[in-house]
Amino acid sequence: MPFSGSIDPVPTIDFTKGHGTGNDFVLVADPDGELALAPAEVAAICDRHTGVGADGLLRAVRADRIPEGAAALAEDAAATWFMDYRNADGSIAEMCGNGIRVFTRFLLETGLAEIPPGGLRIGTRAGVKTVVETADGFEADLGRWSLPDGEPTVHADRLLVARPGLPVDVGNPHVVVALASDEELDGLSLVDAPRIDPAPADGANVEFVVPAEPLVVDGVGRIRMRVHERGSGETRSCGTGAVAAALGIRYYAGQDAPDRWRVEVPGGVVGVRVERTDDGEHAWLSGPAVLVYDGVLAL
Amino acid sequence: MPFSGSIDPVPTIDFTKGHGTGNDFVLVADPDGELALAPAEVAAICDRHTGVGADGLLRAVRADRIPEGAAALAEDAAATWFMDYRNADGSIAEMCGNGIRVFTRFLLETGLAEIPPGGLRIGTRAGVKTVVETADGFEADLGRWSLPDGEPTVHADRLLVARPGLPVDVGNPHVVVALASDEELDGLSLVDAPRIDPAPADGANVEFVVPAEPLVVDGVGRIRMRVHERGSGETRSCGTGAVAAALGIRYYAGQDAPDRWRVEVPGGVVGVRVERTDDGEHAWLSGPAVLVYDGVLAL
Repeated sequence: MPFSGSIDPVPTIDFTKGHGTGNDFVLVADPDGELALAPAEVAAICDRHTGVGADGLLRAVRADRIPEGAAALAEDAAATWFMDYRNADGSIAEMCGNGIRVFTRFLLETGLAEIPPGGLRIGTRAGVKTVVETADGFEADLGRWSLPDGEPTVHADRLLVARPGLPVDVGNPHVVVALASDEELDGLSLVDAPRIDPAPADGANVEFVVPAEPLVVDGVGRIRMRVHERGSGETRSCGTGAVAAALGIRYYAGQDAPDRWRVEVPGGVVGVRVERTDDGEHAWLSGPAVLVYDGVLAL
Repeated sequence: MPFSGSIDPVPTIDFTKGHGTGNDFVLVADPDGELALAPAEVAAICDRHTGVGADGLLRAVRADRIPEGAAALAEDAAATWFMDYRNADGSIAEMCGNGIRVFTRFLLETGLAEIPPGGLRIGTRAGVKTVVETADGFEADLGRWSLPDGEPTVHADRLLVARPGLPVDVGNPHVVVALASDEELDGLSLVDAPRIDPAPADGANVEFVVPAEPLVVDGVGRIRMRVHERGSGETRSCGTGAVAAALGIRYYAGQDAPDRWRVEVPGGVVGVRVERTDDGEHAWLSGPAVLVYDGVLAL
């Protein structure tokens, strides 16, 4: 289709759009770190009506071409690619559990990287992460996690009574709330943020979770969840939220709880796995990573 | 950026993304009418997280290559292009006041059409429409309009008291509600549909409108509005809604009310103009039309 008009003469940017369980991203290959995108430009690109539309932007830069990459290379010289993640509002973000899978798919499809034995090491602002390939996508090591003290009360619109919440830290703060039934989960309104009492100083993502009946099948725990993300509202999928939900229900389930979990989010299904390592328990998140289309955008 | 992977070997579709005051569309050139898109495919393309994302899809087909084009050609042999408009859910739609501007921009930019003296005639399922170029976009004749009988009461969340609504028919049904202040308009919640009493059989779009103070400057009436569209919820812009809002306030303003209106919608500004013709008053809608990027999608 020949274009003769206004799109061609101005600078353009090649991009790919992708998603993992509905958590969607604009992906840009910028090996030499030449693309300086101001926050306002990122926000314009991520606008769902007047731009491309996405939950965030993932820029692939060689680690030695971006200042933040130095720390990643110091941690592991194999972390040659850096994932520069920006939120939809243009602000800088550290890590994204769903995004790193889509980022990995992008590196593979564009021929920028291959996954070596032991996994691909990717630099992020939250340290170097390991990604391995699975039958239906990728699995990423999200690192250490913890259960901070406290049992806040959580209330949300159309929830009959307030419930106790379990704080879970997966690099970012979460509060997990167990519900009794699918009907209760489906009936919730998450248009307004759930009220957490006492309110965490920096806010928290809130996961409402329904355990399946029976909870464990073939050694895998099964839960369904919806999530309200700080600053974003309800989303179709939140990677660290799925991890927090699985870890929270695993804690409630007690000593015999499994290390593998199947988590149904509104946008699909992800897997959570607890790995016991020398430096404590790590949480791994697995799921699909889909590239949807390629585009050319006028800047 | 060389792609070696999964995107290339499958059938692809070239598209352009565009918008008019935030009302956004996927545009596809299909001159020979060879692209049979099932409703589910359109819905997948319009999905904002797993597809391209849009309020609808506009397919440009030569009128003699699509069955619906015959009626358009019978009405005016100059209507050689047909706008096949689909809603985001894949259903067939008749017309779109913002869409036809973006459609026209697309025809011009791709070199498929030029605007002749007197305007470009475009076939739609609501008849042949005329589009002319303006300083900052395009203006389209949306045709006849009427004020049906009735004065329903309208209530919406966070509105202090229910208000009288004025039914306006612009090819599709609207109810216009005048509010007293910007504060009242901004305070409204349109997450849930406004309640219209008595409820119209087929529902209606509802426009909440605040007249400017003074209402008329240099012969142009000025209003601000928000809109709740049947089946879509609150949107950034609704072309026929802007027309209905202007016509409604024009009616309330009485005999000396102007024929030209400036309508501020959440996504920008559009113009409404009443033209007195031999077959009664026609409403024209003007506004910007922007092409944002070109893309290639795997089907």
